[in-house]
Parts: sequence; structure tokens; C-alpha cells
Amino acid sequence: LAVRLRPHVKTHKTLEGARLQLGRDDGPITVSTLAEARQFAAWGFRDITYAVPISPGRVEELEAFFQQGCRLTILLDSEITLNAVEDYARRFKKVVSVFLKLDCGYHRAGVQPTDPKAVTLAASMHDSAAIDFRGVLSHAGHSYSCVDRAGILKVAEEERSVTVAFANRLREAGVEVPEVSVGSTPTCSVVENLDGVTEIRPGNYLFFDGYQAAIGSCETSDIALSVLTTVIGSYPERNCVLVDSGALALSKDPGARHVTGGMPTFGLVCDPKSLRPLPGVRLGGLSQEHGQIEVEAGAPWDELRVGNKLRIIPNHSCLTAALFEQYWMVDGGGVVGSWKPIRGW
Amino acid sequence: LAVRLRPHVKTHKTLEGARLQLGRDDGPITVSTLAEARQFAAWGFRDITYAVPISPGRVEELEAFFQQGCRLTILLDSEITLNAVEDYARRFKKVVSVFLKLDCGYHRAGVQPTDPKAVTLAASMHDSAAIDFRGVLSHAGHSYSCVDRAGILKVAEEERSVTVAFANRLREAGVEVPEVSVGSTPTCSVVENLDGVTEIRPGNYLFFDGYQAAIGSCETSDIALSVLTTVIGSYPERNCVLVDSGALALSKDPGARHVTGGMPTFGLVCDPKSLRPLPGVRLGGLSQEHGQIEVEAGAPWDELRVGNKLRIIPNHSCLTAALFEQYWMVDGGGVVGSWKPIRGW
Repeated sequence: LAVRLRPHVKTHKTLEGARLQLGRDDGPITVSTLAEARQFAAWGFRDITYAVPISPGRVEELEAFFQQGCRLTILLDSEITLNAVEDYARRFKKVVSVFLKLDCGYHRAGVQPTDPKAVTLAASMHDSAAIDFRGVLSHAGHSYSCVDRAGILKVAEEERSVTVAFANRLREAGVEVPEVSVGSTPTCSVVENLDGVTEIRPGNYLFFDGYQAAIGSCETSDIALSVLTTVIGSYPERNCVLVDSGALALSKDPGARHVTGGMPTFGLVCDPKSLRPLPGVRLGGLSQEHGQIEVEAGAPWDELRVGNKLRIIPNHSCLTAALFEQYWMVDGGGVVGSWKPIRGW
Repeated sequence: LAVRLRPHVKTHKTLEGARLQLGRDDGPITVSTLAEARQFAAWGFRDITYAVPISPGRVEELEAFFQQGCRLTILLDSEITLNAVEDYARRFKKVVSVFLKLDCGYHRAGVQPTDPKAVTLAASMHDSAAIDFRGVLSHAGHSYSCVDRAGILKVAEEERSVTVAFANRLREAGVEVPEVSVGSTPTCSVVENLDGVTEIRPGNYLFFDGYQAAIGSCETSDIALSVLTTVIGSYPERNCVLVDSGALALSKDPGARHVTGGMPTFGLVCDPKSLRPLPGVRLGGLSQEHGQIEVEAGAPWDELRVGNKLRIIPNHSCLTAALFEQYWMVDGGGVVGSWKPIRGW
């Protein structure tokens, strides 16, 4: 669709994952923490967008990136943060690259597109000698509330049109807007028109997960991340099986409850080799180190014996991935390598 | 109550925490992972109970503990695991210390107290030259479904009476039962009678958390663990504030929803110094690195300005604690040290 891909690395947090996303060892990326930014800068990445509004108290941490020749673009939506950035930039004689964060409908962060103060804030940045105003950035996180591909397409068009319209409003007010940056994995997985957009920033798509499959971003067979687990208890008298993956292995993310409905599941229980979901089983409960699988009539008890292996496709791969020290890369049934994710903030 | 305390270290996963629980640098402890067991053995602990049914495929990992002179007691509730343990013990000429795991009413793991096969399994262990049968172990995790102290007291008595009665049943069948081990933080926080019990294994009580306070195990002022966070967005037009603690800082544990009811909260938003909960605010949403606070009329907007610090008391301290590389120990407002928890399995 003729836009730049600036993949988000927050889901995998690895050099190897970024390589797969970019097809090379550097290139534009998006990060969710300054820890990710620091590590990717150390790996030689020179164009990084930190896509969470920066804490004003952490603005001085930008200095390390300038020292390394890495352009770390931040985003903000408040005057208080803008003042902190300008203070830093003047004191250290730097020009900071900044996006204005726009709320395109998700209502998590960002200025409102109809708020006159939003234009004022953008104009202040555009006019400031301390700031290189990069443009407008939004994220259609409300795509996660969709129930199918058609719904996601609608949100994708809202993300595009609201963000482009706001950028044009700034342009009419005399503010140059070089970049119009949008993107979530659901919207980027289905979008067909990105007129006026310059870059997209999906991240989860490298792994996908049960949530994405439930809302229509992908098929279950597209999901790359799973947790290998072992049956450690079998209780046919109460139709229950216990596995050694609990909340510290899977996270307690409830998944796409608005789609899956009914009784909760904390992941899709699969055959360990084929990765096909087993019939008649539901991972209904998680405690710290235990996973409780409810077993219905017709379930394959033979595959649920104590000591047997299973694979669990998590509801939310970003959270599951962050709980492990490393990934084991599997190809054709064998382990072919390991990746170590970045941790912390 | 004249029983041994064998504290669970799974909540804090540190030497320093175990010292606080035990009053000394060694002593009997309970662990939730073999990684915890290995590290505590390396620190000199010589009497450790691994309180999750061991995976049969990991039984050979016991060898390292024998080499170090550490008694690692395991628990099991299946013949398959018993066979794996006996195989290992015979092959390596070892005698393995084992508890029979009993389901005292929680229905997560364990044999049923009325199941004749439970007695058979215990007798097999008692009669096996390869096994040092330590007795019966249960965990009243269903205390977490209580709504007040009175309810917890009832579950505590159930935990005690069911486990002691089963131990006596084994004794009548000629099986020696040296230990009757029970305990959850809720039950151990309120229990008044432990007749017939030899040891208790609470763990969460070192920190407590919002869940424990909600069900009556403790007061909010007893909670030791909190997450220091910063306001990174303020949106009075939609009564919302954004903080830089998301699901990777707090976990997505929904807390004691059966008590708290109404709209969900992912933690208690508090004044950073007094740790008193702020009125009119609710941490209603978490994404990976964002926390969304809903703000009602009458809330102290002055304390919610961009850049201000807040503290969040988590719903579930075990899960929150495991997400951080270290704890900062605070006394009288100042940092007086740091602890580094064990990770992995």
C-alpha cells in the first residue's frame, strides 16, 4: 500500500524478530520501552520511535541516544511534557524529534482531533527551535473490540481517515506534517487503503495469538508462539487435568471475551506436534504455576495422561512472551535456535 | 498454634524474604519451581518442599539436590509419577522424600480423601524401599473464594479436618504419616485450631495484596508491595488519566471479583507517600505498557497531573513481583536496599 513499515518490536523484543520484520539488520522500528530503545540502539538501529507518551521525568534519558547518533523519536500529548522536552533540548543544545499523539477513537492516549488545543500544541512544536516536529501518530487499539474482519476494516478506515484529516487540519493551520503514522496488528492485517498515511507500526503480527485469531486478524494456523507444557495431574473423577503452565507462563490475559463468550479460557490446548487444538478441552483456570484444563466427554484422554506433552497457544502473545527468558525456535519439529528478549523499562 | 512454619517463598523468590519469614538464613521452606529449589539449595537451604506435583520427566533433576546434601521433598498424586520416581530412585540408589498430595476441597490437584485408590497409593509409597513417605499435604486454595474472615475460618477448619482425617485413615491402614502439611495465606492468617497438623505453608502473607485485603486475610495497610508509577497522560475531557504501568508491570490478574464486584480494577491507586488509596479513581484498563485510570467527580486532579507519581497496590502480588528484575526496599520514605528475585523454572 506504498507506506513505510516501522514494525513494533514490543511483542518479541529481539534482534532476530526485528530482522524477520525488516528483512535486514537495521531500519525503522517502534518500541514500547526505553529499555528496548537502548538495546536496539546498541545493536546499531538508528531510527527508533518510542510509541508510549514519554514520562517528563525521563526526558534526560534521550541524551544517551544523541551520544550514539540514534534518532529516538518520542511522542507527547501534553504541555507539561512538551515543556520538559524543551527544557532538556535547550539545556543540552539538542533538537528532539517528536510526534503529536492523536486519539483516533481508541480513547487511551492522545489529543482529541476536534480540540483546538491540539492544533495549538502542534503549532508550538512546529515553531520550537528545540523540536523537530515529525507529525501525527495514532493507534487504533479499538480494533481489538471488533468481532470480525469486516469490523476491523471499518476501524482501519477510521484510523486512517481521522488521522489524515487531522494532519490536513494542521497543514491548513500552517504546520508542516511530514509523517502520518498509524497502525495496530488487526487494522494492518486487513487494511486495503492507506491514502495519506506515510507509515504503519504493527507488532503482534510476528507471532499473532488466540486474541488475533478470535477477532479475525489471522487464522489459528498463522500463530507462531506456543508454550510447551506437561500434564502433571489427571483427575477423570472430576473431569480435570493439570498442566505445569500457570499464570507465570501464560499471563492471566482473558483473551477476546467479547467474541469467545461462554466460559473463559486462558489459551488454546493443542496437540504438541501438529499444533491442532484438541477437542473437548478448555484451559479454564490458572494459578501461579498450575493450569487447570476442564475435560468434556469425547476428549482424547489418551493425550492427557500424566507426563504427556501439550502445547498451549496463548490468548495474548505479547504478555506470554515477556514471561520467558528465551524463545526456542522450532522448525520441522526440531529446535533450531533460541532468541533472548529484552526485559524491563 | 504449635506447628512448624515452612513458609512458601514463591511470592518473593528471594533469600532476604525467606530470612524475614524464618528469622534465620536456613530452615524449612516451600518452593513452587525447581529453579527456586536450585537457588535456595545453592544458598545453603537443606530442607525444601517442592509443592507442585512434579513432572515425571523432571524426576532426574532431583539428583543435583542429593549431590548437595539438600533434602528436596516432592509431592505426587498419580501412579505414573510414582513409577517415574521409583525408577529414578532405584537406578541412582537414592531414597526420595515424597508427600501424597490430597485434595482437601480446592479441586485443583490431589487424590480425593474418600477414594480407596488414595490409600493404596500411600501404602505403595510407605512400603517402597525407594521412598521416604513424608505424609499428607494439602492446600485450601478455595479459601480465595471466600468473602470474609468468617468464611475463611470455615475453609481453614475444612482444610485441617479433611487432611487430618485422611492422615488418620492412612494410619488405620497401617501407613505411618509423620507429617500433615496444610496452608494457604488466607487460612493461615485467621486459623485458630491446627490440631493434628504438623506444619503450615503460607507464602503470600510476606507481601499480601489487594486480593487478600478484599477477602479479609489482612487490612490494606498490611500490604507491603506496591508499584511506583508516573502519570504520562491526563484527559479531563474524558475523565481519564494514563500511567506508565501496564500489564507487564502489574499482571492482568482481575483480583477478588466475587467481592469487589462492579467495574474491574487492576490495582488500588494510592498516594505515593502515604500509600492511602486516592478517592474517585479506578485503574480500569491495562494494555502492555499503559494503565488507564478512570476518574470520577471529586477525585484529586492535582495529584493526577502529568509527571506526578502514584503508587499502585496490585491485585495479586505474586504475579506482579515476578514481572520485575528487583524490588526496591523502602523504609521511612527512603530506599534502603534491593532484592533480586529468582526467575524461571
